[in-house]
Amino acid sequence: MQKTLLLLCLLVLLGCQPKQHAETYPPLFAATLARTQVQVEGMMEQGFEVPVPKDMAGGHTHEVHKRNWKTLRDAGALFKLTGDERYAEFVRDGLLQYADKYKTWPKHPTNRSYATGRIFWQCLNDANWLVYVSQAYDDVYDWVGPDVQKQLNTELFRPAADFLSVENPQFFNRIHNHSTWANAAVGMIGLVMDDEELVQRALYGIPNDQLPAEMRDDDSGKILSKTGRAGFLAQLDLSFAPDGYFTEGPYYLRYALSPFLLFGRALAEKRPDLEVLEHRDGILGKAIYALLLEADPKGDFFPVNDSQKGMSLYSPEVVKSVDYGYYLYGRDASLLSIAAEQKAVTLDEAGLAVATDLEAGKATPFRPKSMAYTDGPNGDEGGLGILRAYSEGGEAQTALVMKYSAQGMGHGHFDKLSYSLYDGKGEIIQDYGAARWVNIDQKGGGRYLPENRTFAKESVAHNTLVVGQKSHYNGDIRIGEKYHPEPYAFVGEGNDLQLVSATSDNAYPGRKLQRAQWLLNAPEFDRPLVIDLFRARGTVAADHELPTWYMGQLLMTNFDYATEPTLRPLGEDNGYEHLHLEAAGKPTGQTAEIGWFNNGRFYTQTMAVRPGDEVRFVRPGAADPNFNLRRDPGFILRRPNVKSTTFASVLEGHGSYSPRDEVPLRPYGSITDVKILVDDEKYTALQFDNKNGNRWRLLFSAADNDLARDHSLTIDGQTYRWSGVHHLIKINASK
Amino acid sequence: MQKTLLLLCLLVLLGCQPKQHAETYPPLFAATLARTQVQVEGMMEQGFEVPVPKDMAGGHTHEVHKRNWKTLRDAGALFKLTGDERYAEFVRDGLLQYADKYKTWPKHPTNRSYATGRIFWQCLNDANWLVYVSQAYDDVYDWVGPDVQKQLNTELFRPAADFLSVENPQFFNRIHNHSTWANAAVGMIGLVMDDEELVQRALYGIPNDQLPAEMRDDDSGKILSKTGRAGFLAQLDLSFAPDGYFTEGPYYLRYALSPFLLFGRALAEKRPDLEVLEHRDGILGKAIYALLLEADPKGDFFPVNDSQKGMSLYSPEVVKSVDYGYYLYGRDASLLSIAAEQKAVTLDEAGLAVATDLEAGKATPFRPKSMAYTDGPNGDEGGLGILRAYSEGGEAQTALVMKYSAQGMGHGHFDKLSYSLYDGKGEIIQDYGAARWVNIDQKGGGRYLPENRTFAKESVAHNTLVVGQKSHYNGDIRIGEKYHPEPYAFVGEGNDLQLVSATSDNAYPGRKLQRAQWLLNAPEFDRPLVIDLFRARGTVAADHELPTWYMGQLLMTNFDYATEPTLRPLGEDNGYEHLHLEAAGKPTGQTAEIGWFNNGRFYTQTMAVRPGDEVRFVRPGAADPNFNLRRDPGFILRRPNVKSTTFASVLEGHGSYSPRDEVPLRPYGSITDVKILVDDEKYTALQFDNKNGNRWRLLFSAADNDLARDHSLTIDGQTYRWSGVHHLIKINASK
Repeated sequence: MQKTLLLLCLLVLLGCQPKQHAETYPPLFAATLARTQVQVEGMMEQGFEVPVPKDMAGGHTHEVHKRNWKTLRDAGALFKLTGDERYAEFVRDGLLQYADKYKTWPKHPTNRSYATGRIFWQCLNDANWLVYVSQAYDDVYDWVGPDVQKQLNTELFRPAADFLSVENPQFFNRIHNHSTWANAAVGMIGLVMDDEELVQRALYGIPNDQLPAEMRDDDSGKILSKTGRAGFLAQLDLSFAPDGYFTEGPYYLRYALSPFLLFGRALAEKRPDLEVLEHRDGILGKAIYALLLEADPKGDFFPVNDSQKGMSLYSPEVVKSVDYGYYLYGRDASLLSIAAEQKAVTLDEAGLAVATDLEAGKATPFRPKSMAYTDGPNGDEGGLGILRAYSEGGEAQTALVMKYSAQGMGHGHFDKLSYSLYDGKGEIIQDYGAARWVNIDQKGGGRYLPENRTFAKESVAHNTLVVGQKSHYNGDIRIGEKYHPEPYAFVGEGNDLQLVSATSDNAYPGRKLQRAQWLLNAPEFDRPLVIDLFRARGTVAADHELPTWYMGQLLMTNFDYATEPTLRPLGEDNGYEHLHLEAAGKPTGQTAEIGWFNNGRFYTQTMAVRPGDEVRFVRPGAADPNFNLRRDPGFILRRPNVKSTTFASVLEGHGSYSPRDEVPLRPYGSITDVKILVDDEKYTALQFDNKNGNRWRLLFSAADNDLARDHSLTIDGQTYRWSGVHHLIKINASK
Repeated sequence: MQKTLLLLCLLVLLGCQPKQHAETYPPLFAATLARTQVQVEGMMEQGFEVPVPKDMAGGHTHEVHKRNWKTLRDAGALFKLTGDERYAEFVRDGLLQYADKYKTWPKHPTNRSYATGRIFWQCLNDANWLVYVSQAYDDVYDWVGPDVQKQLNTELFRPAADFLSVENPQFFNRIHNHSTWANAAVGMIGLVMDDEELVQRALYGIPNDQLPAEMRDDDSGKILSKTGRAGFLAQLDLSFAPDGYFTEGPYYLRYALSPFLLFGRALAEKRPDLEVLEHRDGILGKAIYALLLEADPKGDFFPVNDSQKGMSLYSPEVVKSVDYGYYLYGRDASLLSIAAEQKAVTLDEAGLAVATDLEAGKATPFRPKSMAYTDGPNGDEGGLGILRAYSEGGEAQTALVMKYSAQGMGHGHFDKLSYSLYDGKGEIIQDYGAARWVNIDQKGGGRYLPENRTFAKESVAHNTLVVGQKSHYNGDIRIGEKYHPEPYAFVGEGNDLQLVSATSDNAYPGRKLQRAQWLLNAPEFDRPLVIDLFRARGTVAADHELPTWYMGQLLMTNFDYATEPTLRPLGEDNGYEHLHLEAAGKPTGQTAEIGWFNNGRFYTQTMAVRPGDEVRFVRPGAADPNFNLRRDPGFILRRPNVKSTTFASVLEGHGSYSPRDEVPLRPYGSITDVKILVDDEKYTALQFDNKNGNRWRLLFSAADNDLARDHSLTIDGQTYRWSGVHHLIKINASK
């Protein structure tokens, strides 16, 4: 920090002022520029190092080459903005050092990836490098002159582009974020060098007939696209659903979007005839919004599939999405408030526009709405339903995510119809995310840990139904890639009662699963209730288990349970081998209640139960030889040996408690009873009561999702008539 | 929230303005006043409820009576500040309701305390009630007139005062925070009613000769003070060390200080002849500072002994300490910055002075220094050593606390020479604190949980040496009350090398324990190193085990370990029955290294080990039938079957990592080797190296703590000479 300040002072004293004086820029742009100058000057002073590649992610040579691509890119941008030739010289000299050494580097010595790089342990990082370094090269291309151009083009960039494409087709030709990086890298350097062969290769991929038919990557994803297409335009057409949803989920979309946006902008500028920004009805803009709308109220991306938690709207990588989204797609003023929180802008026209309009006070609050995303290139392979309800005078947001998407390729998890729940303080019901510490060398070199496959991907690690202690699709990606759930109903308008529902007929052969979840915002409750209905229909008896991965510390149950004197794994496979059984109990009444505390708030889940049901309290950590798993608690509602059954529960968040004043407010939930009144092929009717004697009945049409259909259902002699998928009746205490 | 806003609007519209208009007050005072008015008006509108006592803490009647004392006190203060008689009427009518019902309430029906109350389940809460209600009564005493005075005095307040004193001597006559509340309650109401008998009883207690000799409270603390004294003046003389340290620790001091300050101020006003503010060289002011200086860099109080974590400098209860400390004891401008963070002031002259001076811009940063507190009324019963070092240009604080205090009475833990470590993000090496959820009904009615005694108090739950798997003083408070460790050395000046050291000869009969810990702030390290030395000398061989309760997730070790296929408790008693053994390994080299990650930072502990040493990875949670224990990890360095031995380690905090950018900085520690070069009766010499080949030698005089003594020690033919307890030598790589 002191060093940084010193440098800043030196810069000012020495009169190293940018061509356009920083003060003429709006504050956020000026601040980003000044910060970047300090960083780049620091690196320039330190000397540019180009070490022989050796280390895995997190190791020295990895981190130096990574820092280099960032410094080169920033120096290029500074040259463009300030005209100061010292920056151009720095870029040129750095690139010449790379040119000098690149040819002497065979494959990276680690040899631990399905596509080993030359600068890094994996081609993916080589492609990252080339994308960013292409920007730097573009900024100084004219300035370096033809001799240097020729040297760099032939000794460094064309070889690097060939290495990442024709020499590694298993990396280049997938429909996958890795390949998007590869396509963009090859295309962007092609545009800089005016190398049409590379640009064509980037846009259209290597033809299928030049590839081995059964080639697979190490995630078992297929190299050959089903359509026989590859390259950047195919990525645009096949990577996203028509509404912009990215099949791998937001964690990977955040990563994948960079090359899309960077190559997209470069193409828009240098190949305007391709109309890439307008391509597929502006798919890049939709993808930007899909990213920004897949974050919890705190700003963290929903950790669906293989996601490291904590990646956020406010991550440096998302600055570009916000700024380009604003600049290229409609100047949505609510994006400005994200930019303000990001505290940075891109050092280009887009960032300048954002900073200018922010300074002009144009920002409006970012207040995402409920959204049903579709999956698959045609939007017909399931999807992701996000319900958002606002409480406490609109200040507090609750977000529920139900996942009924396609497999999500190699990074997909086996968690059909799973759900997770969030509020402004973070996770309430968690998705485990990935078992991985990205870039942390000590944890398997920063790659996916073995427990990612054996636990994090398995069904039981998620909040979804597990039948016979086997994962969905038998935990086989080849089966998973064939099928997907179907969206059933979505009511995301209004703030009082919202619904998301989907079905899966293939997670378990011979069983039809259907889940419906509601957020109910009613004055009787502090925060929106989650009402959960899970129907399973089969013809062969099996154990049905529904886990709830709650965050926090258990406070109470309304049934007895016994803790285990020694902790044993709950099973041998399908993720159960990683679960310690801590305690178990059999609820005796019709309703099982479990209460816990987290982050200053109380939660109570009230479940309709049947005789024979058992609640198992579990915790990951078994068969975990390197302490890779988090010890977060869960409980499993187990219903043994049934053919068909329906689970129903209500989750209430209530009251508050702070150790600073030690005053609990409403520490007990108000729901007293949850019952299934009707449960047949056509309908399920739920009922729940609260302590004040109010009663709610929620009627659900399980077999007909036509929103215009009329229904009638008689319960206790009372006939209810309604139109559409669901109907809520409130019966007041006075009645 | 909406309701609150509505009320505020109504207040303004109806012209219910305070006598002195809020805007003439400085902002923080005006804001506190306005907030209080909104709260009190809300309660006035809602109607005053005086329910028949029935519930435990957290239950309805408990919370209502608790809210009542607060509302009455606030309404009294509002009457005094605004002159609005509606507030006085509200207080009068509320008190009359209590008078009407109090006589009909026998003991609280729960009967679960050593001193059951009448309004609450324990006398303690009845005393809280009387302290605050006395303030309200004082504010309206003259206004209500003689008839109401007579009625309230005879029907409510004198009976309540007698109940809390002569009817419950086991509650009233201890030297304990419970009794301070009782003394203050009886004395404050005595001052209001001008009842000299009550005032004398409050000041001097019930004479010992009127008490049964062996009477004990349920914490096994003695009722009779050793000195035969009781009452408020005895509390002032015996509760604190001469420097203000409170033997139970800051969590209880925060609680105990309220009656001290409230009764103290009332006495200063109405019995100035007693000179209570000046009593014992201003002991109340020293106690205030002792409280404010026993908080971690985040502001949370160190959780020594029975403490619920999260109680903080910024808790509502601490507002009074800050404001009275400022107003009554020297107007220390650094207290103003705590007040600014508290966002509230007391509604009296003290709060007004704070708010006025804050508004005048007089606040300076609160930057606590290292401090060696003494324990015991005479300051000769051990103490608490707090080292604070500032790094990152003075912005970041690291705080190390070593506990060598007396038993701390009934709330004391058996953790002699234990330590804990904190930075601005919170705990790095934790003290478990109490097993208790204060006021949370679901958790044992909010009282201490069984695991508090069987785990939280035991030695193994702390970062201190455990010999033979037995707790210090054999876990017996009667032994613990007899002994205490001795301070050995404290060097808290300067920021580069600080030392705290203490000895204990009585934790284990026949064994002499000595610990020395340093914070070393050196340019080679990101943050201050913790250097730890633990010497144990005995004549009978026993297993020596040193736990480290680190916060975070294990990243690496430099030795192999094996995880357990099933988890069993590590022992049968002394807290070991609550520990699951997760894994164990025997380091093979001379140095064992364990690395972990927490809160965005990396930590590496490097320990000198010997053949036969074992590291056991443990986690609480065994024999925990109600999920009362937190599942935080720890490791135990076990050295079996030795008579005398010395443990040495270096803990380094380094680098950073955020999931937002996924860039690890310095994920590996730089310490390569920790060795004990000399270890005899007089000296221990440590040596540690870093990756750049630098070497440090730290020489410690273990048997002579005279700061003026000259020492010499020869190591590898090199003779070092120094004066005082310790000497650090740095040997540069070039040498």
